[in-house]
Amino acid sequence: MADQTSHTVKSYDDDIHQLRSLISQMGGLCEAQIIDAIDALTRRDAEAALKVVATDARIDALEGEAEKLAIQIIALRAPMATDLREIVACLKISSVLERIGDYAKNIAKRASALAQAAPIEPMVIVPEMARVVAVMVKDVLDAFVDRDPELALAVCQRDQTVDNFYSSLFRSLLTFMMENPHHITPSTHLLFIAKNLERIGDHATNVAEMVHYSATGHLISERPRGDDTAFATSAAA
Amino acid sequence: MADQTSHTVKSYDDDIHQLRSLISQMGGLCEAQIIDAIDALTRRDAEAALKVVATDARIDALEGEAEKLAIQIIALRAPMATDLREIVACLKISSVLERIGDYAKNIAKRASALAQAAPIEPMVIVPEMARVVAVMVKDVLDAFVDRDPELALAVCQRDQTVDNFYSSLFRSLLTFMMENPHHITPSTHLLFIAKNLERIGDHATNVAEMVHYSATGHLISERPRGDDTAFATSAAA
Repeated sequence: MADQTSHTVKSYDDDIHQLRSLISQMGGLCEAQIIDAIDALTRRDAEAALKVVATDARIDALEGEAEKLAIQIIALRAPMATDLREIVACLKISSVLERIGDYAKNIAKRASALAQAAPIEPMVIVPEMARVVAVMVKDVLDAFVDRDPELALAVCQRDQTVDNFYSSLFRSLLTFMMENPHHITPSTHLLFIAKNLERIGDHATNVAEMVHYSATGHLISERPRGDDTAFATSAAA
Repeated sequence: MADQTSHTVKSYDDDIHQLRSLISQMGGLCEAQIIDAIDALTRRDAEAALKVVATDARIDALEGEAEKLAIQIIALRAPMATDLREIVACLKISSVLERIGDYAKNIAKRASALAQAAPIEPMVIVPEMARVVAVMVKDVLDAFVDRDPELALAVCQRDQTVDNFYSSLFRSLLTFMMENPHHITPSTHLLFIAKNLERIGDHATNVAEMVHYSATGHLISERPRGDDTAFATSAAA
């Protein structure tokens, strides 16, 4: 193991700082991708949507960098258990962010398809839902950077709002599809978009739980994750 | 760093063997969960479906164990870069398997809802699709255990079949919904079930790429991941 000279200690701190800053960058990009995807959806701008699809590769590349750096830090610095747990937490968070990026990309793909369909009414609720979700992603990254358990807890609590948005959208889209068969294809895209946002909310909550745990050593008491519409037996259920 | 005595070397091998065997266990459980969820769907057995939902906690617990063990191995054995990369790959695979478990759980939730609805015709294609996906999960874990790049490659190639299943199901479900508004709620569940299966196929493919890379040092040339229905502008598209 390397001697714990101040030079080595400083370098380790530099390394971990660089790793955390890569993850912040990923988080910032994810937040922007969600906002841009929904913006393209609202403005019915297929070109802007396809730009979001293309930008996802940058998030994937950052994840690759973060993983490489994490392995390098572990190999060169042989960190103690506490530091190791932090590095592993960083790896997990970067993989969650990569997945959030994928959801934003999928939203953008659907936005490009919806730009060609007639606008549908339940869509007005989607930007609202997206705004809450994008703020969750922003806040959980701020909580990660500042090691702020209170903010992490607030992110977890906001997940219920997202689930409520999703349930309400799910039911109104189903009703909307029943009214007119022409609504079915665009409504299906919107349903998947809402589902993607709901999943992003879940992932932000998972990260918030990790941040809270690593800052306090305490688990946030679990609330059932996911929406309850998976059990729905009718649009009115 | 610990001396490379034969005792230490053996212990490291034991540790990594234990980690890989935890991941095999997770893989076996995931495969069983997919099969059981679809079986509950086909037999319209809500009770069996809820058993699948409950069993998911075992996969989550195994992931926790795998992570703990991985951190312990790194902290105690201070492995060299190649071994470290293997441990990090194990961590990534276990997190993918945890997610596959979540998808199976979500299928089971929807199966329990569908057990109360009238059976719908496009459902016959779902067990076929699920069979392909479950075999992909089984094969990718076998490829992982045997470090078999050929089998990993075969898994990747089968993902196209899954995507074709999904596209075909997507279009027939949309047509089916258009025919009769009463089909909409159950068709929506089936659409999400098919989407979950398609995502499991993607995840199995991701793992197969990791297995192939770690066995050969070569990347499998990328094919576009995900289904093309995200771009669909009508059921006939």
